[in-house]
Amino acid sequence: MKIVGKIAKRIEGKEKGYGESKYTADLYLDRMLYAGVVYSNIPHGILKSIDVSEAEKIPGIVKVATYKDVPGTNKFGVVTKDMWFLIPVGEKIRFEHDAIAVIAGESKEAVEEAVSKVKFEVEELRPVLTIEEAIKDEIKVNDENTNVAFHKKIRRGDVDKVFKEADLIIERDFKTDYQEQAYLEPQGAIADYDGEVMKIYASMQCPFYVQEDVSEILDMPFNKIDVIQMETGGGFGGKEDVPSYIASKAALLSYLTKRPVKLIYEREHDIKETSKRHPSKSHYKAAFKKDGTLIGLKSETYLDMGAYSTLSPIVMYRTLTHSAGAYKVSNVYVDVYGVYTNKVPCGAFRGFGSPQVLFAIESIMDEAAEKLGLDPYDIRLKNALDLGDETATGHKLEFSVGAKKTLEHVKNMSKYDDLKKEIEDFNKKNKFKKRGLGWSHIIYGVSLGAGGQHLDAANSEVHVFPDGTINIMFGGTEIGQGAKTAVSMIVSEVLGQKLEKIHVLQTDTFIVQDSGPTVASRTTVFSGNAAKDAAEKIKKNIIDFLCKKFDVSPDEIKIELGVYKIKDNTFTFGEIAKMCNDANVQLNESGWFKSPKLKFDMENGVGEAYVTYTYSTQLSLVEVDILTGKIDVKKMWISHDIGKAINYDGVIGQIQGGAVQGMGHAIMEEIKQKDGKIISDNFNNYIIPTIKDIPEIIPDVVEEEFPYGPFGAKGIGEPSLMSAPPSIANAVSNAIKRRIIKIPISIEDII
Amino acid sequence: MKIVGKIAKRIEGKEKGYGESKYTADLYLDRMLYAGVVYSNIPHGILKSIDVSEAEKIPGIVKVATYKDVPGTNKFGVVTKDMWFLIPVGEKIRFEHDAIAVIAGESKEAVEEAVSKVKFEVEELRPVLTIEEAIKDEIKVNDENTNVAFHKKIRRGDVDKVFKEADLIIERDFKTDYQEQAYLEPQGAIADYDGEVMKIYASMQCPFYVQEDVSEILDMPFNKIDVIQMETGGGFGGKEDVPSYIASKAALLSYLTKRPVKLIYEREHDIKETSKRHPSKSHYKAAFKKDGTLIGLKSETYLDMGAYSTLSPIVMYRTLTHSAGAYKVSNVYVDVYGVYTNKVPCGAFRGFGSPQVLFAIESIMDEAAEKLGLDPYDIRLKNALDLGDETATGHKLEFSVGAKKTLEHVKNMSKYDDLKKEIEDFNKKNKFKKRGLGWSHIIYGVSLGAGGQHLDAANSEVHVFPDGTINIMFGGTEIGQGAKTAVSMIVSEVLGQKLEKIHVLQTDTFIVQDSGPTVASRTTVFSGNAAKDAAEKIKKNIIDFLCKKFDVSPDEIKIELGVYKIKDNTFTFGEIAKMCNDANVQLNESGWFKSPKLKFDMENGVGEAYVTYTYSTQLSLVEVDILTGKIDVKKMWISHDIGKAINYDGVIGQIQGGAVQGMGHAIMEEIKQKDGKIISDNFNNYIIPTIKDIPEIIPDVVEEEFPYGPFGAKGIGEPSLMSAPPSIANAVSNAIKRRIIKIPISIEDII
Repeated sequence: MKIVGKIAKRIEGKEKGYGESKYTADLYLDRMLYAGVVYSNIPHGILKSIDVSEAEKIPGIVKVATYKDVPGTNKFGVVTKDMWFLIPVGEKIRFEHDAIAVIAGESKEAVEEAVSKVKFEVEELRPVLTIEEAIKDEIKVNDENTNVAFHKKIRRGDVDKVFKEADLIIERDFKTDYQEQAYLEPQGAIADYDGEVMKIYASMQCPFYVQEDVSEILDMPFNKIDVIQMETGGGFGGKEDVPSYIASKAALLSYLTKRPVKLIYEREHDIKETSKRHPSKSHYKAAFKKDGTLIGLKSETYLDMGAYSTLSPIVMYRTLTHSAGAYKVSNVYVDVYGVYTNKVPCGAFRGFGSPQVLFAIESIMDEAAEKLGLDPYDIRLKNALDLGDETATGHKLEFSVGAKKTLEHVKNMSKYDDLKKEIEDFNKKNKFKKRGLGWSHIIYGVSLGAGGQHLDAANSEVHVFPDGTINIMFGGTEIGQGAKTAVSMIVSEVLGQKLEKIHVLQTDTFIVQDSGPTVASRTTVFSGNAAKDAAEKIKKNIIDFLCKKFDVSPDEIKIELGVYKIKDNTFTFGEIAKMCNDANVQLNESGWFKSPKLKFDMENGVGEAYVTYTYSTQLSLVEVDILTGKIDVKKMWISHDIGKAINYDGVIGQIQGGAVQGMGHAIMEEIKQKDGKIISDNFNNYIIPTIKDIPEIIPDVVEEEFPYGPFGAKGIGEPSLMSAPPSIANAVSNAIKRRIIKIPISIEDII
Repeated sequence: MKIVGKIAKRIEGKEKGYGESKYTADLYLDRMLYAGVVYSNIPHGILKSIDVSEAEKIPGIVKVATYKDVPGTNKFGVVTKDMWFLIPVGEKIRFEHDAIAVIAGESKEAVEEAVSKVKFEVEELRPVLTIEEAIKDEIKVNDENTNVAFHKKIRRGDVDKVFKEADLIIERDFKTDYQEQAYLEPQGAIADYDGEVMKIYASMQCPFYVQEDVSEILDMPFNKIDVIQMETGGGFGGKEDVPSYIASKAALLSYLTKRPVKLIYEREHDIKETSKRHPSKSHYKAAFKKDGTLIGLKSETYLDMGAYSTLSPIVMYRTLTHSAGAYKVSNVYVDVYGVYTNKVPCGAFRGFGSPQVLFAIESIMDEAAEKLGLDPYDIRLKNALDLGDETATGHKLEFSVGAKKTLEHVKNMSKYDDLKKEIEDFNKKNKFKKRGLGWSHIIYGVSLGAGGQHLDAANSEVHVFPDGTINIMFGGTEIGQGAKTAVSMIVSEVLGQKLEKIHVLQTDTFIVQDSGPTVASRTTVFSGNAAKDAAEKIKKNIIDFLCKKFDVSPDEIKIELGVYKIKDNTFTFGEIAKMCNDANVQLNESGWFKSPKLKFDMENGVGEAYVTYTYSTQLSLVEVDILTGKIDVKKMWISHDIGKAINYDGVIGQIQGGAVQGMGHAIMEEIKQKDGKIISDNFNNYIIPTIKDIPEIIPDVVEEEFPYGPFGAKGIGEPSLMSAPPSIANAVSNAIKRRIIKIPISIEDII
């Protein structure tokens, strides 16, 4: 291959490095107003009145808008419309950052003052703050009959029977807590309504969600709402559905004032309002044979959705399908529940409901190994999936299963057997510092799966100019993960133009069709395939023309990077493009890719859950100070089967970044709350890993090609995080000789 | 048909009517600078020095740029790069509005002052101001060996032989003068360079020309130059290539300052700098048989190109191919020359070099009729083209020839025979007021023809949203002619969505492929066909899906305006779109149309000159005050064969507007000059028709369908003007009983 699989520099890297990239905050429009939000500041209550009269008097204030000003549907909700956009008088406040009013003014200062001048009365209600309280259903958070509003299940095989036949049964409770996405760039949007078209510029993963939500809130048609993604400083799921909240606020104010309106969240508001990883509570029971074979699994997991369901029911689908981990187990009984509480809504976060249960199952595997006198490596290899095997949901795997290779690679890379000895020696020598090794072996269902098939298609546009330079626009988004580079490499591979001649436009809902969200490690596959489709159409147009012009057959045209060789002539791609343009050859094409259809029984959670899966293995070496409880992750060996690395360096970057973010979740990051309010609302008290915390990472890539992926690629965005928490937790358990059953691991769990 | 052929309101009409449309001048960007231009102000000379030091000192001035600051090619020229962008020291100034420097500053006032402070020395040269002087070649305007720089010819049949056999030979000289396009909105552009991408917003007909020119001037690749057409207040050819001059100036300043730069021309600068209709000088000799048959034509036409060739060689192709008018004549000997003078460059203007010669041939036809005792109607009908006939270039017409119908319709509509009597009576009764009737019968080659085949393709993008609303972007431009409405009607017809649900985006070179210029009455055919192609692809996607979903055959799906009927169910188009979107059906497609290839011998001017032709007949009734010389056009009957009227009202609007603009050329509009400088540089001294001057117009549409046109359409933009001048001139001749041989007709020609 000419470029795919090689190492390419980030095509937007220079601009980002030099600070030249335009993020939403960097955009200033003529006559632009600034916006602010009036928040409820209590977790539960009934809004009795709003008085904006004082706020309106502040000089420079142009508009104070409340629920009365909303022309369309005053609600949000991807699955259930259970969240107010602006709380109406008489309705319930359900968490501390419900919005009461939005304000636009000539300066940030005026807006800030006006925000403080909006008065509103609330009849306070006792908040529901834990999963346990929620389950009791004494206080109802939402309008549902029960706080346990959503339930998904797998019923496969005969779990009761195999529990009777088991040689070993492991049963445990697990808990995981919040994680904040901690994207560098907070949420922000600018809306600009000119009386006909609403343009929205925002930091986001999925412009199509914003288009739909703003359409509903303003009662405007889709073809009058132009949503343009600005350079986006990280998303990690936190900018999947959430940007609609911000964009809609700016949009309403712009709609009412007919002026551009900018709303950029301060970190505090961002942390308090936007969705996080769901806290969870699981009960696991697993049956094993003496030889380590996992023969049955029964689990029950509760996810704390917070005040609104947002994406939770979709997150739960992934929790469900990943509950039994990466193993061939045919007797599975899983329940996953989503419960309302009066806290910040939880939603999408890298891993999307799977890290909670992968932590549980991976802990179970280690415990079983220990009890059966097996090596944790061996028990995983024994149960690992292979071609022809069925996943826990009964999906028979016909292609692209590199699970065992990832295990083997990590074992070899780490010189596992020597390592074990070294650790033993170290631990013998050290009384208060104990080292441990921890394995994890995980599966990840690529893209949206059977639960999201209606969204699982993508459009990309490729446009070759007369000088041979190329523009691409794809329906996915670049959110720091390297999508622009990967998709450009795919187009470069097909057309033969060099990467530096390719430019990727920011995603614009007017130009590309709804391509679903940029989540679920689906962008390389979906936007990549759609771009490949467009590029191949153009290539066909070019080749057809050249064959006629030079009287050659297609195989007489040799495409190299930057040049086409035809008989004895060599033409640059620019020369080819010029020839084609002058001969009226179409060089602008629309590409499309849709997921192969999946068969899945939603009622029983059985069938083809995802189009394909990635498989990952991680081994972590940690050192625990048993006096202070400090955990020092020293080294991580990580292997991922991702089908094909399009940009090798980009993949390594994802592996490193994901593992570090996973480590943060495992041992550092904690959302502290008091009376239903978040205290850790900035990075001075919400601590994430810094460069100093990053251990040595030895990454590895397994390439079991996915036949429907572009050049065989699957995905890497999410699994990169997911292998870390269970591996680190298992390493800590291994060091302290006691099971860790809660994430993040706190000092108290150790000392 | 559901909508095509019916009457639709302009889809952008409301915004224009309410003053809400955004023209370039209405756009304000953050940190925007204003620009001004330093002009030579002499018609001919050598630039000896430039001193910008005083200008730079003016407070608020950010940049004064000269030729030294141009990073790329400092030249313009569609055919020949003979025009400086900014005149270098040591090089020649060739007309009074050559640009010496461009200036950007914080305010218009500062820029105006700085413009007056730029000093430059010039060694003046004697200017060449007439075609006659130019032909003498005593002074050379350009670097060519001769001022007569371009020559095109037709050599067909044996002209000398038929002149010997002729019963009547008519020989005459004709002259036509300038016409200014007089678009309501002057030229203007905003350039916004962010260090990576140059965005240009401008008033223009052809964004692709601007993209190419800016690319060359700044030495930037096409995929970094995003040219977006703003609402454009008229073009008439004057915004074909010329906007590059304005956009490049703004772009250079933005490139140098990295700030947005706005340059809007005052009317005076616009009139003095921008290209106009070519003045011409023709010698015609035509041979007739007694019965009125035109058997041979010999003509020689000189076009005054002004200082630079711009589009002149392309204009000359149309002059050439239209020299023999709308008649079947097989012995043709035509020479067309383009000459340089030290005056404003001439270029594209509605009719594009054809009105000059159509005036001549139509005058010849009338004179021949008179001399042969024939009615001017009859001599035209005798020579008019029909299916199977060959045009003057030898193009055998296989389809869509409604020439004779247009003649017959006008005769019938006007009750010609009665009318003639009335006129006779009137003239008998009136001594100083004389009425006259004048015919014209013209042909118009649709689109660019054999001379512009490399540009004769078009791309349109159609995007159906999940709510069924639709966006279209086409590579042509809306310049007031109604293209948005016509193209939307075509899409509406194909897909069945109602017109009010369709929105057309402004043309953007990043999104649509080079679709050639919006000129030559080609937009309905080209952008329309490309949009039809895209819409048909989408329709196919939809129908394929519906057939599967509802288990029906395509003919069981009935598409009406706004609804699809499938068996007993009726779905709105919005419901259909939602279904399709949820099923991953591609609803965003790229459409393409390219002109069928033409065979044409450029050397001899023989062959298929254009893909098809429109045919028009006009009869005008004028009243001439023979004491004052005042001409009062009282009534015009006009019939055009345009293949198919997509939007009937739009076509009538074009017919009315074109005829009035043609009337302006015939009797009112005059560019006055002194010593090579234009004096009539605003609408107080360049007089165009107003609402009070408009005569009664009786329009008629003949629809001989063009098989390659969308639903049979050809074009109307240009022919609408072209029938008027010869018809009015013939009517004046008829009234004063003396041949008019010069346009515009002045008082002196009459009294």
